[in-house]
Amino acid sequence: MELSSKTKPLLLLLLLLFTFSSVSESNQFCDAGIEYGEPGCGISSSSSKILIKGGTVVNAHKEEVADVYVEDGIIIAVKPNIKVGDDVTVLDATGKFVMPGGIDPHTHLAVENGVLESIDDFFSGQAAALAGGTTMHIDFVFPVRGSLTAGINSFKFFMAYKGAVMINDEILLEGLKKCKSLGALAMVHAENGDAVYEGQKRMIELGIIGPEGHALSRPPMLEGEATSRAICLAGFVNTPLYVVHVMSIDAMEEIATARKQGQRVIGEPIVSGLALDESGLWDPDFVTAAKFVMSPPIRASGHDKALQAALSTGILQLVGTDHATYNSTQKALGIDDFRKIPNGVNGIEERMHLVWDIMVESGQISATDYVRITSTECARIFNIYPRKGAIFPGSDADIIILNPNSSFEITAKSHHSRSDTNVYEGRRGKGKVEVTIAGGRIVWENDELKVVPGSGKYVEMPPFSYLFNGIDKGDAKYLSSLQAPVKRFKSTD
Amino acid sequence: MELSSKTKPLLLLLLLLFTFSSVSESNQFCDAGIEYGEPGCGISSSSSKILIKGGTVVNAHKEEVADVYVEDGIIIAVKPNIKVGDDVTVLDATGKFVMPGGIDPHTHLAVENGVLESIDDFFSGQAAALAGGTTMHIDFVFPVRGSLTAGINSFKFFMAYKGAVMINDEILLEGLKKCKSLGALAMVHAENGDAVYEGQKRMIELGIIGPEGHALSRPPMLEGEATSRAICLAGFVNTPLYVVHVMSIDAMEEIATARKQGQRVIGEPIVSGLALDESGLWDPDFVTAAKFVMSPPIRASGHDKALQAALSTGILQLVGTDHATYNSTQKALGIDDFRKIPNGVNGIEERMHLVWDIMVESGQISATDYVRITSTECARIFNIYPRKGAIFPGSDADIIILNPNSSFEITAKSHHSRSDTNVYEGRRGKGKVEVTIAGGRIVWENDELKVVPGSGKYVEMPPFSYLFNGIDKGDAKYLSSLQAPVKRFKSTD
Amino acid sequence: MELSSKTKPLLLLLLLLFTFSSVSESNQFCDAGIEYGEPGCGISSSSSKILIKGGTVVNAHKEEVADVYVEDGIIIAVKPNIKVGDDVTVLDATGKFVMPGGIDPHTHLAVENGVLESIDDFFSGQAAALAGGTTMHIDFVFPVRGSLTAGINSFKFFMAYKGAVMINDEILLEGLKKCKSLGALAMVHAENGDAVYEGQKRMIELGIIGPEGHALSRPPMLEGEATSRAICLAGFVNTPLYVVHVMSIDAMEEIATARKQGQRVIGEPIVSGLALDESGLWDPDFVTAAKFVMSPPIRASGHDKALQAALSTGILQLVGTDHATYNSTQKALGIDDFRKIPNGVNGIEERMHLVWDIMVESGQISATDYVRITSTECARIFNIYPRKGAIFPGSDADIIILNPNSSFEITAKSHHSRSDTNVYEGRRGKGKVEVTIAGGRIVWENDELKVVPGSGKYVEMPPFSYLFNGIDKGDAKYLSSLQAPVKRFKSTD
Amino acid sequence: MELSSKTKPLLLLLLLLFTFSSVSESNQFCDAGIEYGEPGCGISSSSSKILIKGGTVVNAHKEEVADVYVEDGIIIAVKPNIKVGDDVTVLDATGKFVMPGGIDPHTHLAVENGVLESIDDFFSGQAAALAGGTTMHIDFVFPVRGSLTAGINSFKFFMAYKGAVMINDEILLEGLKKCKSLGALAMVHAENGDAVYEGQKRMIELGIIGPEGHALSRPPMLEGEATSRAICLAGFVNTPLYVVHVMSIDAMEEIATARKQGQRVIGEPIVSGLALDESGLWDPDFVTAAKFVMSPPIRASGHDKALQAALSTGILQLVGTDHATYNSTQKALGIDDFRKIPNGVNGIEERMHLVWDIMVESGQISATDYVRITSTECARIFNIYPRKGAIFPGSDADIIILNPNSSFEITAKSHHSRSDTNVYEGRRGKGKVEVTIAGGRIVWENDELKVVPGSGKYVEMPPFSYLFNGIDKGDAKYLSSLQAPVKRFKSTD
Repeated sequence: MELSSKTKPLLLLLLLLFTFSSVSESNQFCDAGIEYGEPGCGISSSSSKILIKGGTVVNAHKEEVADVYVEDGIIIAVKPNIKVGDDVTVLDATGKFVMPGGIDPHTHLAVENGVLESIDDFFSGQAAALAGGTTMHIDFVFPVRGSLTAGINSFKFFMAYKGAVMINDEILLEGLKKCKSLGALAMVHAENGDAVYEGQKRMIELGIIGPEGHALSRPPMLEGEATSRAICLAGFVNTPLYVVHVMSIDAMEEIATARKQGQRVIGEPIVSGLALDESGLWDPDFVTAAKFVMSPPIRASGHDKALQAALSTGILQLVGTDHATYNSTQKALGIDDFRKIPNGVNGIEERMHLVWDIMVESGQISATDYVRITSTECARIFNIYPRKGAIFPGSDADIIILNPNSSFEITAKSHHSRSDTNVYEGRRGKGKVEVTIAGGRIVWENDELKVVPGSGKYVEMPPFSYLFNGIDKGDAKYLSSLQAPVKRFKSTD
Repeated sequence: MELSSKTKPLLLLLLLLFTFSSVSESNQFCDAGIEYGEPGCGISSSSSKILIKGGTVVNAHKEEVADVYVEDGIIIAVKPNIKVGDDVTVLDATGKFVMPGGIDPHTHLAVENGVLESIDDFFSGQAAALAGGTTMHIDFVFPVRGSLTAGINSFKFFMAYKGAVMINDEILLEGLKKCKSLGALAMVHAENGDAVYEGQKRMIELGIIGPEGHALSRPPMLEGEATSRAICLAGFVNTPLYVVHVMSIDAMEEIATARKQGQRVIGEPIVSGLALDESGLWDPDFVTAAKFVMSPPIRASGHDKALQAALSTGILQLVGTDHATYNSTQKALGIDDFRKIPNGVNGIEERMHLVWDIMVESGQISATDYVRITSTECARIFNIYPRKGAIFPGSDADIIILNPNSSFEITAKSHHSRSDTNVYEGRRGKGKVEVTIAGGRIVWENDELKVVPGSGKYVEMPPFSYLFNGIDKGDAKYLSSLQAPVKRFKSTD
Repeated sequence: MELSSKTKPLLLLLLLLFTFSSVSESNQFCDAGIEYGEPGCGISSSSSKILIKGGTVVNAHKEEVADVYVEDGIIIAVKPNIKVGDDVTVLDATGKFVMPGGIDPHTHLAVENGVLESIDDFFSGQAAALAGGTTMHIDFVFPVRGSLTAGINSFKFFMAYKGAVMINDEILLEGLKKCKSLGALAMVHAENGDAVYEGQKRMIELGIIGPEGHALSRPPMLEGEATSRAICLAGFVNTPLYVVHVMSIDAMEEIATARKQGQRVIGEPIVSGLALDESGLWDPDFVTAAKFVMSPPIRASGHDKALQAALSTGILQLVGTDHATYNSTQKALGIDDFRKIPNGVNGIEERMHLVWDIMVESGQISATDYVRITSTECARIFNIYPRKGAIFPGSDADIIILNPNSSFEITAKSHHSRSDTNVYEGRRGKGKVEVTIAGGRIVWENDELKVVPGSGKYVEMPPFSYLFNGIDKGDAKYLSSLQAPVKRFKSTD
Repeated sequence: MELSSKTKPLLLLLLLLFTFSSVSESNQFCDAGIEYGEPGCGISSSSSKILIKGGTVVNAHKEEVADVYVEDGIIIAVKPNIKVGDDVTVLDATGKFVMPGGIDPHTHLAVENGVLESIDDFFSGQAAALAGGTTMHIDFVFPVRGSLTAGINSFKFFMAYKGAVMINDEILLEGLKKCKSLGALAMVHAENGDAVYEGQKRMIELGIIGPEGHALSRPPMLEGEATSRAICLAGFVNTPLYVVHVMSIDAMEEIATARKQGQRVIGEPIVSGLALDESGLWDPDFVTAAKFVMSPPIRASGHDKALQAALSTGILQLVGTDHATYNSTQKALGIDDFRKIPNGVNGIEERMHLVWDIMVESGQISATDYVRITSTECARIFNIYPRKGAIFPGSDADIIILNPNSSFEITAKSHHSRSDTNVYEGRRGKGKVEVTIAGGRIVWENDELKVVPGSGKYVEMPPFSYLFNGIDKGDAKYLSSLQAPVKRFKSTD
């Protein structure tokens, strides 16, 4: 983004404070499990013409039994009984669900936290994504020298991480106003950073230096507080707000209240918040306990169920991962001080499976809802729908085939992340992504990745998504309601 | 519905207590303003092949500029640049919105309240509907001799109207269980009928016999209470609930709380609750005041805005009317006692216009949201989507063309209801339904109705709508969570 | 109460529906452990002149180090350094708290439930009370032949127990109005009886016939619902409401909301709800499980802490017991059907100790708060303050000496109830009632009861307690706010 | 307060950020209406022995008909039928209420706001207080050169006034911890100062420069946000919190929620928030509009009623004034920019009358409640009860006689403040303070002040009020609940 000299001072300031999101579409790497980063590891054998026959095609707004025909990376037709020639690869999806590829709104690949770099780079991370049915992810990047690449339509503000990226309310207000003028979505990591800092000191002083100290130092109330504050400020500016990784009832309640009052607030639970509870952090084995360290922390049992419930009725809107992985060697940096344990858990490969199992298999939501919360709503929010997030003629051919009668099991032994641990180790469930098609190519089939490196694509996301609809009218209405300025004669008493 | 002898006793009981909804699709009457009931008033001149060119086609999930081609009552194609022959009626929709016809989930045409019959029968009521862009309505009927026509998938329970149709909690519980087993949607009129009765006596004793006594005798707290109770009981049975005419913050808050906790509760505000406040009931002219009498009452200013806000973010889901009209002669029955004023207001003709003006023109929602709350969500809830509620190839050709730059004005002088009054008298706004197509025929164009009587159609609604998805799984999960029965040895102490 | 013929029909009806409360002041029985019911078991050796020296005298509004001098059943003086003659019994209370005797607002002694009579009659029950520092209790009686003894100022309405004492909203409204006119306090047992009945059937159908079925059949939501409804109706009538045995967060939240809005609602948690959780009902031993059966049920862990918190800040106001005891033989009536287990737990002896330990020892409240919630507020609500509930010159000499450094242990082996079980079996804590003085006599000292039977006294409670202050002004204000009736000319149009 | 060198760095920091409260007891000035500041205006003619006969003596915990005998500034006796000699001044209080003198917890006399000094100094302010039945006030002072006078037990933190006294969360956390260690009460002015600053800029940019811009620039949501945040941080530190001038439903709701959860939060509404609404700020006359400018602003109608309701049930605890007066010349500094209008309204003279009229006369509370919220609770919170806030033998003789059948009228023409305006101009009501006794002398009688200047006294307030009871036990309980640190063997994998 070229900056006029006028806005530069603001942006120089923002440089230290913002991360912003870029979009990377995964596809076409070689077998991620073995050959990461090896260029030219072989042409994918998958055809550029694909017919998916007999499946139940699920979009967020309806499901229907139909065939899906793909050519040159684009969905050409969605209707029953499509006839094709011999040059077309035919996939039988009878009894299975054909759905838009997952879109993960929240990942950190190859992220540097100041001390070290996360273990999953764009190679292993995207391989994991594809193997798990996710064909696109939105990754956060830190701006360099004030230059923002065009196609960015969201900015994330950290209310935590004092001494590092934490901002104060003044900057947050400036950022919200700037976002509003750009038509960009303001996102917040909502924890009260000053109180977290205080909580950390307190735990260390109490001799609680292990991973359980991480949870104890930043209780749910601090997440609720910051969420409430961010909502207040976004409401004051009248611009949409996206709360990343809603981990607690406290934060969810604030979002629910705001939405009830008509405010445009998006709440993103993440799969670890829906599927886990904090007990792992109390594990007597450090390696096990440390792998659960992320912020805001995974909460006590009860928060997970409440977040699921709110997600099922649209109080929360979509599911992310905050995928940021560190292996046990990296996590061991904090063996004597939980504050030094690099924050992050895996999830990019597990999200689609776990959300199916937790939300659909349990009867809480339908398959159409599943598509909405794993793909469509994300595409709408980031303004790339229906190119993404839908199985329509003309949409990009990012498609998964999910077999509801098949099962999955998660283990670090077979996952595609480079981490040697997995926070879902040993977890089983129903519903298996059997095929992933990304950009019109079959990249995951028969438990095998078929990809070549370097072919991921950057997807531009235009500003002014649907969340901005009518904001200007609302502003005008507000102004006309003020009955101000009052006309006054200067009193001569 | 054929009843086995086994279920008869229950149904004989239910006869006095339930009303159930039937669906009637409006179309093809002669000019309702003049020739109601005159059979054979002329063949409609509208062609059975129609091309709508150049409009912005709006579905609940997306909008796009496209042409819409209709043949024999069915939408054949939705795509740009459709070419047609000379036998096709072409409508230019450039710069206008092409949307699914409105579906009103809540009307009472030709309803008998025990004393008199409402002034709008299926002729005038449906004429008004079509002139206002509503092509289908769901009307409530009272069961006769235990026989329910198949195709009914919802039942309404009255928690008010003591001494008439009011039921107690025991019957409500039985009804909810029966609905669950049938896959039918339970609906409630939620006011505490005992307290309303008490409130009415109190007002009469205070000498408050005019229409303002209607509002004062049944304050919002009584609506909130009954809503809370119905939600509790539906949650206890674990079956979906639909709260008709949500008129107050009190009721809305209960729905919001339940949804936050994952309960499947649908809240239906109606247009009078969104657009009006109670001040009309205090009008010194009885005729004016009496026309606003309906139950639950139109509330004090503030409730309207709060309902709009909740509707804008999906806390409430769709908009109805509770259209039930009585002319000023009929309303005058209660000149000396507000309890005798027949309850009901108009709305079937005004709903689409007012919702556009209040919700879209004000910037609170987008055009896609508008389609969702006026048509699509209703079709989904009553399980007839996407035959209704969508502009898809294969859907019924119930379509409106709405010009956002045109204006409307409401007055009893020109409306199509037979009533001599209109609760929105004199109201103007932006957004005009210029064309209504029902069942593939142009029935409203150039402010003229082109219909023949007797051609409305009954639409069957299958049970087990999406609201029932996963209910069985949820029940199973609940049972497995009980840790019961506990195995016990009988103590020998 | 003499009834005019006019009100008789109402009261004949009420007979089946109400219980009302009578007050009995415990004292002067022989050693309850041995000689219950034996008249004339010996003159109490305690003097009629008592000086309590050097203790910290605690009233609800302040504490101070002072002596307390008692003569002829009345407190004569409260001040430092009182000098007395040799005929005065002197008790050294240095380092201990001297407090008003406990008043239990909610007991059922010698109650018949239709099948059997509770094991504690007025002899054993009051003995237990005195041994636990409670010198007065308010017991519920069922009216006989329409005659209510004067001195009753409260009536209890059951919203549960369908087929027995349950009333509907119509009767509840009538009762609330009657209470208001009498200046009597309306009390409710708040559970939705229809839903409880349904829940019970469901459990039996599921084969869950043990005590755990009791909890599962009547979940917290049913208590919350009825509480909300009772509050709504009491608010509609504008009369104070007292919710007995608040057992759940659900009910407490409703009370909190009402109070926030200025409504006069009293919430009474009971000691079992503060001190226990439902896990006992799942005990594999029937005798153990059955002893925990009471209604509303003791709830899952978490409700206890929330009730304590609300009690600590005055959202809830006083602590009762709902003491109603059945021994294990009686409880065994429900060995094959939890619905037949007689409902009730002990508490009259344990309340003062447990509330001290749970609330004061934990740091949640102060000693003055303790006096307020165990004695003073009860006396105020039932309009006998400061005769009761205070250590003032002129107050009745109902006094306890509590040693905060001493400990208690609860066991059926040593308790004074006739029951062979105790729901607090084995529980220990800090704070011990070392002396109880009732009516000016030392009745409990050195772990010994010194009482003669037959000397309990009935205490009249006048109507129109402080909760009725300003109700008439509020009503007048409400009426003047209505802007009704509107003056209308009959329209001649 | 002497500071050890160790704590100095913190306090040097705090100097800029805190104000702290000092206590000044009003009495013995000459007729404030005439002879402000004139030393030696004459010996008060009132006797040092006073008998108040036949009144209803009201304390917070009870009321009784009794005489009150005062000697040398101390209450000697409170009982019926006190006989005295001829040297005693006898006041007949038959049919009237004899109550503890009011204590105003929140005043700013002789305050400098950086530009000018408020018009009421300690002379006129205390004169006004006495004429209005307030015998003590707690005034805020700014610390000078790090030296705090002993006897201070509360500190106020400003979350607003950016660029001046506003602090951030880091400092607030430090302050809360410091307060906890000192046993001092932390108070907050709760508005989000960054957002207020933004709101002010916005209004100026919109050309809204008049007093209405003051209200529009700092809406209730900003007060709610800061209240929520302060509560969160105080809860995190586990120290009591006192929220000054609760002006909005938003702030009140946060306090209610915290208290429901057992947190020790005190909410202080002020009389302008209970008695007024914002409409005055829209007055076309600048002088009139400007006099209503204070922060947080007086809110829209509806907030007043909600605060009254919460006050009536103890959700809010006591009533202050935030008395800070500027005359119309001073207010005119902001004629062209509302930001320059000095903030503050009168109230010290009107509080007792208005609270009686609004709360007692309306039927919302009783006379005992009135004493509690105007005097006793303040004395308890600031740890000077029962020396102050009670009519007990031994208490200071600060007493008022209030005639409930007399009337008051408020006007700048007769008030004792030096301001030429009064925000309650023309207001009338029932209940009149006919006599004020301060320190045992009659200082207000027959609408005349009888005081000599310079005799006000400073009252020391010890730390560790009742609000600190059990805090240490709660902390210990919290620590023991952590199940941390976990014992871990370092993994050797």
